[in-house]
Amino acid sequence: MIAVDWGSTNLRLYRLDAGGRLRERRRSDRGTLASAGHFASVLAAETVGWDDEHILLCGMVGARGGWHEMPYLDCPAGVHDLARHLQRFHPPGFDGRELWIVPGLRDTASDTVPDVMRGEETQLAALLDALPAGVHQACLPGTHSKWATIRDGRIERIHTAMTGELYAVLRRHSILGALMPEDDSRFDAYAFEAGLRRSAEPGGLPHHLFGVRTTGLSGQFADSALPSYLSGLLIGHELQAALPSADGPRPAQVHLVGSERLLAAYAHALTALDIGVQRHSEDLAARGLQALWRHRSHAAAIAG
Amino acid sequence: MIAVDWGSTNLRLYRLDAGGRLRERRRSDRGTLASAGHFASVLAAETVGWDDEHILLCGMVGARGGWHEMPYLDCPAGVHDLARHLQRFHPPGFDGRELWIVPGLRDTASDTVPDVMRGEETQLAALLDALPAGVHQACLPGTHSKWATIRDGRIERIHTAMTGELYAVLRRHSILGALMPEDDSRFDAYAFEAGLRRSAEPGGLPHHLFGVRTTGLSGQFADSALPSYLSGLLIGHELQAALPSADGPRPAQVHLVGSERLLAAYAHALTALDIGVQRHSEDLAARGLQALWRHRSHAAAIAG
Repeated sequence: MIAVDWGSTNLRLYRLDAGGRLRERRRSDRGTLASAGHFASVLAAETVGWDDEHILLCGMVGARGGWHEMPYLDCPAGVHDLARHLQRFHPPGFDGRELWIVPGLRDTASDTVPDVMRGEETQLAALLDALPAGVHQACLPGTHSKWATIRDGRIERIHTAMTGELYAVLRRHSILGALMPEDDSRFDAYAFEAGLRRSAEPGGLPHHLFGVRTTGLSGQFADSALPSYLSGLLIGHELQAALPSADGPRPAQVHLVGSERLLAAYAHALTALDIGVQRHSEDLAARGLQALWRHRSHAAAIAG
Repeated sequence: MIAVDWGSTNLRLYRLDAGGRLRERRRSDRGTLASAGHFASVLAAETVGWDDEHILLCGMVGARGGWHEMPYLDCPAGVHDLARHLQRFHPPGFDGRELWIVPGLRDTASDTVPDVMRGEETQLAALLDALPAGVHQACLPGTHSKWATIRDGRIERIHTAMTGELYAVLRRHSILGALMPEDDSRFDAYAFEAGLRRSAEPGGLPHHLFGVRTTGLSGQFADSALPSYLSGLLIGHELQAALPSADGPRPAQVHLVGSERLLAAYAHALTALDIGVQRHSEDLAARGLQALWRHRSHAAAIAG
């Protein structure tokens, strides 16, 4: 089978054998934003040479404005629920092959405003059945960081924080970015931790952000350390609100899913809060799609 | 005398007679950012025909990178303190005239990160002596909203929130702005109040910002109402943190200083919190400069 994780900006393709082993992988920058209107030809081009019958897709490809809009499935939902709601669709040009899309998830119960994910539920699907019964926390950092509370194998709560996008727009377009050097690849642990500590103080984020400026102007940190300070400040604000039971006991451990660089910052922040970390690679989506397909085939075999 | 409020983006000039009455006013977009390196010629051009001996300046013109850097004066400070620290300087081309600059204010005591203002202290100087003894709150909304706690005629606490700039960068450069129409001049009171209420809920600002997207996509508000929702959300977060004694009693009234349109939104938000509002125009800087000059002349007369 071919497993496709098709997000807004990235397209990741995996070829799996019948046993679920990863045989080949491809990656392209033709995300759904860049592929709008010609999804079929992009997929055909990116899967050249892969003639597998079954193609499973997850991510923004199933959003409004994507290839084939899939309604959201409501939380709580586990692998079984997601597998049962896989939807087959028939785009021209793919005769003789089976294309399936995973629904996104929606949480309307945990907050007054609904929260959603598309793609991350599939990455989490690779974990759900492997986790012991009970409550687990997962975090998928990114432009829009996704937090999930998992209870007994089902995703129960979704909490999104626009942390990565806030960092990017402030870095590129605000007065704070003007204080910083172009290159922000250098991680300054001391400044990052100062930002984290600052986030726990009163004053609120809009006030703390102005403090990045005064901190910079006062020379407390070198200009090259300010991106790390800003990053620590924003991630700190995210963690404080995203970690459930802010008043009660904090989770002992958080499952982190994502690219190595992003995970490093989040792992640093969680460790500073005495919270353990278990890391998982971005390729979790391939294993998640494989798990969903296995469940579906199994269910079909029983029904059939 | 000529009173000059020279901020980053705007230059406001006032001509006052000996009795302090406003005789003429001019306004230009040659703020300090646009005037760097040729402050003298800009001021000469903008004051053509005004031959008054005394020229008083306040605002970013006294900042690092401005015309004449003035050190910050530490809080608490009142009209008397500011007047005593007016500094005369002698730029070429202004022989026979007296140019003076007002220092900015710095608060290093109320928070772990210092906070500052430049220009706003002069607007407040117009109020300080007129207020009865006791504690008063003032707010000067803008790109960087300035809050001041005034006790017995002196500015005691400064709290800046980057609210206006956050709104602008999110509106222009984030996924949230993409949902909104170009024109955001229409104020939607219902959406604004929903944003205010949302700001009082748990979840944190980075999470609430993502909620602007889901709220927009779910069709809860028309796209044209989303800018007001975002504005209410950000101003709500600002107010909650900026209003002193969040745990104790809130102030009965806040003095608002600024342009009519901005004040309307802040007055709306404060009224929703059952806090009274007293509005003051942006031209307060002219009266503040006049008050500082009067104090200085009086002190000089006594000393002389």
